[in-house]
Amino acid sequence: MTREKLYLYDTTLRDGQQTQGVQFSTEEKQQIAQTLDALGVDYIEGGWPGANPTDSAFFDAAPKTRARFTAFGMTKRAGRSAENDDVLAAVMNAGTDSMCLVGKTHDFHVTTALGITLAENTENIRASIAYIAAQGREALFDAEHFFDGYKANPEYATEAVLAAYSAGARWVVLCDTNGGTLPEEIGAITRAVIDAGIPGDRLGIHTHNDTANAVAGSLAAVDAGARQIQGTLNGLGERCGNANLITLIPILMLKSPYAERFEIGVSKDALRGLTAASRQLDDILNRVPTKQAPFVGASAFAHKAGLHASAILKDPSTYEHIDPDLVGNARVIPMSNQAGQSNLRRRLSEAGLSVEAGNLALVRILDRIKEREAEGYTYDSAQASFELLAREELGQMPAFFEVKRYKVTVERRKNKRNQMVSLSEAIVVVKVDGEKKLSVSESIDAEGRDRGPVNALWTALAKDLGRYGDAVADMRLVDFKVRITGGGTEAVTRVIIDSEDAQGRRWSTVGVSANLVDASFDALLDAVNWKLLREGAVARA
Amino acid sequence: MTREKLYLYDTTLRDGQQTQGVQFSTEEKQQIAQTLDALGVDYIEGGWPGANPTDSAFFDAAPKTRARFTAFGMTKRAGRSAENDDVLAAVMNAGTDSMCLVGKTHDFHVTTALGITLAENTENIRASIAYIAAQGREALFDAEHFFDGYKANPEYATEAVLAAYSAGARWVVLCDTNGGTLPEEIGAITRAVIDAGIPGDRLGIHTHNDTANAVAGSLAAVDAGARQIQGTLNGLGERCGNANLITLIPILMLKSPYAERFEIGVSKDALRGLTAASRQLDDILNRVPTKQAPFVGASAFAHKAGLHASAILKDPSTYEHIDPDLVGNARVIPMSNQAGQSNLRRRLSEAGLSVEAGNLALVRILDRIKEREAEGYTYDSAQASFELLAREELGQMPAFFEVKRYKVTVERRKNKRNQMVSLSEAIVVVKVDGEKKLSVSESIDAEGRDRGPVNALWTALAKDLGRYGDAVADMRLVDFKVRITGGGTEAVTRVIIDSEDAQGRRWSTVGVSANLVDASFDALLDAVNWKLLREGAVARA
Repeated sequence: MTREKLYLYDTTLRDGQQTQGVQFSTEEKQQIAQTLDALGVDYIEGGWPGANPTDSAFFDAAPKTRARFTAFGMTKRAGRSAENDDVLAAVMNAGTDSMCLVGKTHDFHVTTALGITLAENTENIRASIAYIAAQGREALFDAEHFFDGYKANPEYATEAVLAAYSAGARWVVLCDTNGGTLPEEIGAITRAVIDAGIPGDRLGIHTHNDTANAVAGSLAAVDAGARQIQGTLNGLGERCGNANLITLIPILMLKSPYAERFEIGVSKDALRGLTAASRQLDDILNRVPTKQAPFVGASAFAHKAGLHASAILKDPSTYEHIDPDLVGNARVIPMSNQAGQSNLRRRLSEAGLSVEAGNLALVRILDRIKEREAEGYTYDSAQASFELLAREELGQMPAFFEVKRYKVTVERRKNKRNQMVSLSEAIVVVKVDGEKKLSVSESIDAEGRDRGPVNALWTALAKDLGRYGDAVADMRLVDFKVRITGGGTEAVTRVIIDSEDAQGRRWSTVGVSANLVDASFDALLDAVNWKLLREGAVARA
Repeated sequence: MTREKLYLYDTTLRDGQQTQGVQFSTEEKQQIAQTLDALGVDYIEGGWPGANPTDSAFFDAAPKTRARFTAFGMTKRAGRSAENDDVLAAVMNAGTDSMCLVGKTHDFHVTTALGITLAENTENIRASIAYIAAQGREALFDAEHFFDGYKANPEYATEAVLAAYSAGARWVVLCDTNGGTLPEEIGAITRAVIDAGIPGDRLGIHTHNDTANAVAGSLAAVDAGARQIQGTLNGLGERCGNANLITLIPILMLKSPYAERFEIGVSKDALRGLTAASRQLDDILNRVPTKQAPFVGASAFAHKAGLHASAILKDPSTYEHIDPDLVGNARVIPMSNQAGQSNLRRRLSEAGLSVEAGNLALVRILDRIKEREAEGYTYDSAQASFELLAREELGQMPAFFEVKRYKVTVERRKNKRNQMVSLSEAIVVVKVDGEKKLSVSESIDAEGRDRGPVNALWTALAKDLGRYGDAVADMRLVDFKVRITGGGTEAVTRVIIDSEDAQGRRWSTVGVSANLVDASFDALLDAVNWKLLREGAVARA
């Protein structure tokens, strides 16, 4: 049986940016576009060219993607031709193969918000779509407020989407803009549109999560015949967010009847990268990943109930609806039992440490991790710090050098030209091979900018590590994340530092303290020690 | 038309406690039971008497509730009578009017996990339910793994639930224990059970959110005829959580066709307490409330897109599916570079600044915001910093004091007992009313812990602000968020500080710099200036 093609249209970079507190930089948009492309979505909506400088800059240096790169805009305004509408021109000029234009289909919005007649609005839709199609480019029509519009005036809402379809829109996307339509109704109205003459393989669905039904509403539209789903990574989006593609993708690939009926652009391999893709977006946004997120959350396959956990050991299918490996996630079972130990051994072997089952060090490592997690540490992403901790318990951690003390000063004052300037200065004292070494460094970079106290500490530390100097010379700090988290009864600061070297290694380390500079310094030390291990440095006895 | 009664069964205190990281104390259970009762649910499942000391203590001092207070347990084991099963006895002895027993209905689990015959299992269900009913108490039967069981062996799954029904169970609850069944299938199987002889008003539905369809699955079962919904507050529960009653309640009360067809125990007044109930649970659990939560999240009625925001000003129904007042939530129109002038004026008027349309300061404020957002600032959540920026452009920002310079030192060294300790020290120099004031403070708190450089800066700054000292005396820093973000071509640090005062005000301010201490200091200064404004402080000319 051949499976029907179902298209995924991602709007993380456009509708996703409507999330409160989210503002992507051009570089972040580039990164996310790459993630989406690797995942295998069919369309990547990049933003609204001309609407703001970031979106314009992003389209100017549009990434090369396998997915169709799409510019978003709106249908032409009344009283001018499509050719002479400057807002539409900016969208056309972005030069993408595909363009998605939003337009009104709810009579109330046409007369109230736009203040034009229904006929004028229909003509705006027709002319805009026809204009794109006439240039041999692909047109999509986002039918804003379609479901509310259909409920208020089914004749007009249908007229509006038929206008787009007849004018040559590849896709007519039914949008539940306010997020209030329940799945049952989405299905019924989608069927009515198909009955009115738009084939299902020309229809898309765009839902919002205001009633926690964005995924169910998308599925209801597919059940009714729609063949394109619009959504975002992690369900980003205005208010309660858009349909979450991170949830929809595994449902479509693993769940009956979708897995049997449809084919989507995501490969089984890419599906295994789903959890990583979700976490990567959270990293970019510095958001704490949602533990309870379906499929990809840290708790999604965590079995707390004692009865469940023991049944899981006999057969995972007893309390799991899918195998977590399929989506790159992992089963979590209370660390204290047998399963916890085999998990740990797997993790250690990933770090090149082979430890036989039953080794008492395993229990010590588990205890130490629990203790540190209670203090606010996390080893989920800080794999390098995890390895150092395990090596200590295994007696396999060389003492390369010892930090005797450090001191860092941050100052803001007026300079000679009466400008306020800030400056950081760090002193680090280490003992290497029995020899004490004092280094001092300030935070001012080549452009005269103050790079802050952590940078100053890093520069001072790297300045003189004696015979280890060469080994860390190609290392640099590439990211720095700070979170306030509960450590026992007090709030503490958790710092995660990502480092990179010239060989392309990238590693993460963690530090925790009530003092954020101190937490940073600990993460720095771990980063340096891990690098020395990888460089094969040997400590003198 | 009389509306049919639909029952809500809350299991926050039992299944909700399976959430990773959640462990209620007896007092917390009391508090939550009161919240549930005030909300108006029909059943409160209190826990499993005998399973752990907390649950036993809670039942010993069972709260007086309008809702039926229910004890959870499991059906008797094979090879003993219901009267002689000690696990069942503990549940009976809790003395509640209602008891809910879980039992197996999936053939594979019966033979694999329990290791008994299907007939024995059926008899265990029958005898346990009959025993409760014979004592004149209300019995509920939670049919574990019912949907997976039905798919594997519909005859046996049906036999098992019919046994409970025939033995006198008031409710037979169909549980999608592993959370993998999609709404369509839940509806179809629920209909099949009704066809097999259990009336819908004796059927309940218990879903999990592993595919983000817990709410949709509950609605599908109700559509099919079930008349009881089991769920938890905020969707707590094992793995991805249970069906979220906080979402279901407003859907059932406000959305078609449920609002017209059904009556639930929640009053319109209680519905207005929904947001508070949700936040209260987060407070008890010390969790950050989910911003994007349907109905009750801080972003649920936040309108970021410029076009949306200006339409909302004309008529909120343009981009809102319900009035946020109905669930005790509030509309938010945040600032972002997509905002228009009308959005801006609305935001200013919320801050008590009335500016007429067309005032050129509006353009200057928007330009300034755009410029600063390009540098890495964000004003979505930092409402207080937004107000200060606007006041500056409007010429309405008093210069209360001037910071001449600051210096902060963070040091780690060995103390006399050879322990590594860290210490921060800050010096702040301000000019108030022409007078220069030097203050110094260190970061060590009452317990001897180093609170870090930002805390030291704050303490030093607050130490002597001259005649403004009293105005800031009740202010404290409650949260601190740091992220690295692109500012132009360079990475910069963005710090957001949340402050609170004794009058219950809570405000957020933002600072950006390549130097994280410097960024923190700027956010601090904004926090102090905003507080002085609110306290009606007046700067001398």
